[in-house]
Amino acid sequence: MQLEFFSHLRCRECGRLYPKEAIHVCEWDFGPLEAVYDYEAIRRHISRDRIESRPPTMWRYREFLPLEGEPSVGTQVGFTPLVRADRLAKALGVREVYVKNDTVNYPTLSFKDRVVAVSLSRAREMGFPVVACASTGNLANSVAANAASVGLESYVLIPADLEASKVLGSLVYGSRVIGIRGPYDKVNRLCSEIAGKYRWAFVNVNLRPYYAEGSKTMGFEIVEQLGWRLPAHTVIPMASGSLLTKIAKSYREMIDTELVEKRPFAIHGAQASGCNPITDAFRKDTELVRPVSKPQTIAKSLAIGTPADGYYAIQTIRKSGGAAEDASDPEIVEGIRLLAETTGIFAETAGGVTVACARKLIDSGKIPKDESLVLCITGHGLKTAEVLSGVLDSPRVIDPSLREFDRLVSSDINRAPLPTRSEG
Amino acid sequence: MQLEFFSHLRCRECGRLYPKEAIHVCEWDFGPLEAVYDYEAIRRHISRDRIESRPPTMWRYREFLPLEGEPSVGTQVGFTPLVRADRLAKALGVREVYVKNDTVNYPTLSFKDRVVAVSLSRAREMGFPVVACASTGNLANSVAANAASVGLESYVLIPADLEASKVLGSLVYGSRVIGIRGPYDKVNRLCSEIAGKYRWAFVNVNLRPYYAEGSKTMGFEIVEQLGWRLPAHTVIPMASGSLLTKIAKSYREMIDTELVEKRPFAIHGAQASGCNPITDAFRKDTELVRPVSKPQTIAKSLAIGTPADGYYAIQTIRKSGGAAEDASDPEIVEGIRLLAETTGIFAETAGGVTVACARKLIDSGKIPKDESLVLCITGHGLKTAEVLSGVLDSPRVIDPSLREFDRLVSSDINRAPLPTRSEG
Repeated sequence: MQLEFFSHLRCRECGRLYPKEAIHVCEWDFGPLEAVYDYEAIRRHISRDRIESRPPTMWRYREFLPLEGEPSVGTQVGFTPLVRADRLAKALGVREVYVKNDTVNYPTLSFKDRVVAVSLSRAREMGFPVVACASTGNLANSVAANAASVGLESYVLIPADLEASKVLGSLVYGSRVIGIRGPYDKVNRLCSEIAGKYRWAFVNVNLRPYYAEGSKTMGFEIVEQLGWRLPAHTVIPMASGSLLTKIAKSYREMIDTELVEKRPFAIHGAQASGCNPITDAFRKDTELVRPVSKPQTIAKSLAIGTPADGYYAIQTIRKSGGAAEDASDPEIVEGIRLLAETTGIFAETAGGVTVACARKLIDSGKIPKDESLVLCITGHGLKTAEVLSGVLDSPRVIDPSLREFDRLVSSDINRAPLPTRSEG
Repeated sequence: MQLEFFSHLRCRECGRLYPKEAIHVCEWDFGPLEAVYDYEAIRRHISRDRIESRPPTMWRYREFLPLEGEPSVGTQVGFTPLVRADRLAKALGVREVYVKNDTVNYPTLSFKDRVVAVSLSRAREMGFPVVACASTGNLANSVAANAASVGLESYVLIPADLEASKVLGSLVYGSRVIGIRGPYDKVNRLCSEIAGKYRWAFVNVNLRPYYAEGSKTMGFEIVEQLGWRLPAHTVIPMASGSLLTKIAKSYREMIDTELVEKRPFAIHGAQASGCNPITDAFRKDTELVRPVSKPQTIAKSLAIGTPADGYYAIQTIRKSGGAAEDASDPEIVEGIRLLAETTGIFAETAGGVTVACARKLIDSGKIPKDESLVLCITGHGLKTAEVLSGVLDSPRVIDPSLREFDRLVSSDINRAPLPTRSEG
């Protein structure tokens, strides 16, 4: 069976072709390199039945991923639930909402397991002895865990002020965790320098063309799980902007290979107000993304002041008829609570951003109330639990006595019924 | 299509039949009630192909679950990865290890989502307006989340001294969380009293016969994911002992309905040394489980001093040719680290217990080195993260400078290579 439909890397700007190596920018114009596939061959090779007959992982879309052989890392990642969320739809005042739930992605509870599965598999194909990344937390967790699972040595570089759970969630795997003083952009710049000097696979630097393609699987799964249908609206959190551009790419690839019928799909972007370079440029109707030098937001996983794919994200949003929004810290917390109370899904701050921005897009009419939308929820709430401390009521504590319990319940009955953020 | 193969409840002791109501003990001898199925009808109805054609959730084993209609809560729970763990096998000195990874179970990262999916679906069939539970944490998270997902009001009762993440992971869903002063057994007793007075569905009290059956799905999945083969050895953590008895039951049911070929399977139980009533009775060669009145262990999710199914767990272990072990707090932490460093799976304390006990069972020859085993890992490590504080090295912190990085890496190179707990 033909496995490899992936032939080259190509510059997004000038179209020059490059061999499948550990490079990520064009030598001529510094444009980003992207994987090139033979879509006509994929179209002939693939079908819905074929995909559905495969194991429930992201690798059922193997043909669209830039590996030469079979994946060897993260072979069970993906195919997370798409959850129909009627109570959330009601709260948001919109016809239909689905939640793509990567809070339960395997193994490290975020969508980053997708990009890491591809990039570490590719790193092994290329024979790299050490893998590494610059990360706002989730990527670090995933590189550390997936490297451990196959015995690869790993270094993860993170801003020194990251959430405790995200630091712990890298250390526990035995990865070498290095905190860098300063914001993420300084971490990223340092990693570019290191990648230039050491022969290491930096998944989101020199392996970025391979890495980024992994995000497409979130989009493929959404379409399949909707019954092979494109969603009218998709709301996606933006850090570098890469996830958003790749989900849009996945939709286009499914159209091009005739896996799904063509119809309009609007792609909406969500950022935190304290680090909103892409949303800001969208609002100002420019493609010039102005860096945010000092991000100030509880959504640390989205706090990238110089988003590598910001320009492409804006283009994708505009061309698709979507919009960009941002959310303040209190709105983010409110978004986390609304999602949890109506769907039972506990998201990290980035998920709060997505929910809060979706609400604003609906309220402002950018997502019509009689349409259907998908929210991309990318990481688990236990990773950023500290943002809820002091926000939720503490448990009431009683002695193990029925009388004390009766008293507590009767005082409850005088309270309002189950409060829902949105309705309360 | 016939959906319901479940006809009655039956006393495990005297065999008396009862109707399918919210009752859990026999009126005559106080024996526990269990669901009764028509296995002959299931055998005729079901096949491997039929199961494999269904969505990848626990509900692909619908015929073996005690509902009257279709499930309405937790419809996407289960079918978590079974991971072949060669590096862990090497570290443990045994031929082959598989990890059944319920740390990524949907939605609340533990196997409890299985039992809650069944019991809340049953509670809705029976028309209960309020659902509740007595919990050591994971069950509380799951009842709170799954109740929220369908708008059911919920009360969860927990020991007042539970881990912060487990408390937060119930509060966030808007559940009413009540801390009870004292150990779990006091919480449980109070819940029995409350269930006698209020018309509420206490999933693990008056709905226990329905609830407990959900655990079988972990066993069904293991067998299917092994390629329709029974594992020679399964190591299972024990709190009440229910999970262990139900996994054994699932294996027997698959034999009885001809889904899998009969072969010997040993069932091994794992407890924390600080609360080991079942292991202690096993060692003393008695079936008399002596209560532990003051559990002292970091594995709080297993800290049940009076295990409801302890007697049956011992019988199951003995009859199957298995054994019971226990692990100290330092061994538990070591088990968490070994699992994380060799498989990329971050387990809560109960998982550390399972790994540590497996190691002891292998070292003592109770699991032969040339055989194959499955470890049941039941909950995610972020839920009990505090046990690692002060255990793991802190990240090294540097300025964003290549020179500082070079210095750090060269000092690293003088260190030993990637340390692995087991090999180090």
